[in-house]
Amino acid sequence: MRKKIVLLAAFALSAAPMAMAAPAEKPKTRPSAEIIKAAPAGDWTAIDPGDVLVMTLSPDAAGKARQVFIQLLPAPFSQGWIGNMRKLAAAHWWDGGAVYRVQDNWVAQFGDPDEDTPKAKPLPPGLAVVPESEYLVHNGPRNIVCDRDVCPSLIAPMDWWAQEMLNDAYAFDGGTGLVGFAKGWPVATNDKAIWPTHCYATVGVGRNNSPDTGTGAELYVAIGTPPRQLDRNIAVVGRVIEGIEYISSLPRAPGNGMYNDKAKNTPILSIRLGNELPAAQQPRFEYLSTASASFREYVNARVNRHDDFIIYSPGSADICNIPIPIRRRG
Amino acid sequence: MRKKIVLLAAFALSAAPMAMAAPAEKPKTRPSAEIIKAAPAGDWTAIDPGDVLVMTLSPDAAGKARQVFIQLLPAPFSQGWIGNMRKLAAAHWWDGGAVYRVQDNWVAQFGDPDEDTPKAKPLPPGLAVVPESEYLVHNGPRNIVCDRDVCPSLIAPMDWWAQEMLNDAYAFDGGTGLVGFAKGWPVATNDKAIWPTHCYATVGVGRNNSPDTGTGAELYVAIGTPPRQLDRNIAVVGRVIEGIEYISSLPRAPGNGMYNDKAKNTPILSIRLGNELPAAQQPRFEYLSTASASFREYVNARVNRHDDFIIYSPGSADICNIPIPIRRRG
Repeated sequence: MRKKIVLLAAFALSAAPMAMAAPAEKPKTRPSAEIIKAAPAGDWTAIDPGDVLVMTLSPDAAGKARQVFIQLLPAPFSQGWIGNMRKLAAAHWWDGGAVYRVQDNWVAQFGDPDEDTPKAKPLPPGLAVVPESEYLVHNGPRNIVCDRDVCPSLIAPMDWWAQEMLNDAYAFDGGTGLVGFAKGWPVATNDKAIWPTHCYATVGVGRNNSPDTGTGAELYVAIGTPPRQLDRNIAVVGRVIEGIEYISSLPRAPGNGMYNDKAKNTPILSIRLGNELPAAQQPRFEYLSTASASFREYVNARVNRHDDFIIYSPGSADICNIPIPIRRRG
Repeated sequence: MRKKIVLLAAFALSAAPMAMAAPAEKPKTRPSAEIIKAAPAGDWTAIDPGDVLVMTLSPDAAGKARQVFIQLLPAPFSQGWIGNMRKLAAAHWWDGGAVYRVQDNWVAQFGDPDEDTPKAKPLPPGLAVVPESEYLVHNGPRNIVCDRDVCPSLIAPMDWWAQEMLNDAYAFDGGTGLVGFAKGWPVATNDKAIWPTHCYATVGVGRNNSPDTGTGAELYVAIGTPPRQLDRNIAVVGRVIEGIEYISSLPRAPGNGMYNDKAKNTPILSIRLGNELPAAQQPRFEYLSTASASFREYVNARVNRHDDFIIYSPGSADICNIPIPIRRRG
């Protein structure tokens, strides 16, 4: 617990605005865009097309095509739900579905607009019921623990990270929590577990009250303030890596965001796993490895930014304010 | 600085998923909506119509009217820029302007689309040049300090708050920073100063590199992840309290969000201070006092939520995940 502010007379008498001291003292950081552009090829990691869902929405009012690309979260996280999503995609189950809910500063949700009604579309056979315990990766049963000596591939940058930014409200847990990056994804961890965090464009599994009721058929995309309070409560399964603007700019509906007129739903023409598409249409993306030197410089530029525009840099950042650089390959 | 995670054997051997222990142990919290609805009239504070800008956009494609209501930040914050904004509104300067920039997960910006060109609209006379020092309220010159014994009206709920949530990356500043609420607004503070924070729907003053170049004529609205890195770097001057969906659902433009085709701009028909409108049209809003018992219960429900849906509550929250309840009066 941090101490209550104690105001010292010295501070009360000082007339020096603290924001003015910073820029002269610190070397300028390179702009993020420049760091990303200069990153060598070896600092980028290809995303397997088989780990990307390609969602084709109906064209917009002007007839423009709309495709949204969703990268699936890698193991060991949320693989029960993601296995279901692979089955749903293979069965073309989402085709003819819709984005049926858009609540401002919260989520857009898609799947079957008739879910929970007598007209609900039957789910394909063989979907798993995934238990509550899968919302995070525990130490113990899986023997995955959050220390570089035990799972270095998962947590490689964490030690460095811990020196830069610790102050995460949602991982706090009495003082043991940290946030960082693992395998190109933002994660939070404490002395018991590790879990993926909700940020802007995160995709998660809608569910009813019981934690095991989400199949992966009904999915939401975060379109506002990162809903970090859902961490450890809902399954994070992916993120939109291209086309988020086709989701985030949809008209909002009042209340919980459900359109009361189904004509306002945005139809989903199809959702395919990228490797089901013809080779020329397969999505080819890459992300800046979160273990790379370029990524470290990028994070530093986000955390300790000093340039002609910024007059004060806090020396810290929210995990969701350090988006992972992702781009098309080649 | 928090300690690096040290993994104890006891944790590694434990098979108990930590998320499962919480709900049985803690009493259920009332839903936020229920707390707000039940708050007595005395817990609400009226917002003066003279502190609300009413922005009327052109009707949407279906002919629907679009009004956006922006509450101005109260003293002692940012009053130099806000004084300029009152003059701009009185001069009807924004009429005929536009929302000319919408960058996804960042900001929508409005004002004069010809700004920084030879066709720029002349500003009204008498606007102040506001210095860098106004980005926060310092201790010292103004003798405003962040302790309840010195400025109780500003900081009343802070002590209580400090016990609930401290872990704010942007106010950290070596361990003295806190976040809380003052006069119905989210603020951050340390042992030197207090400043308003950027959250979703925050309105700020666009500027060029020099910190004193923002007049208040060109304004932005945050429409994604709270851009907290702008705290202390750009003047926060208000927040959208109704109609944010007309801003947040506008089509995005690539890159920095400037529309390359001016036909895509959203025209501003007018911006008026609420007290310039006929009495029947004046905006009448109220906010839940951040010093009230209802607000404390509301915050607790956001921070320590326990109900039929939530299986794990972090006991903390980001300041921007506790939006101030604001509603129409009567």
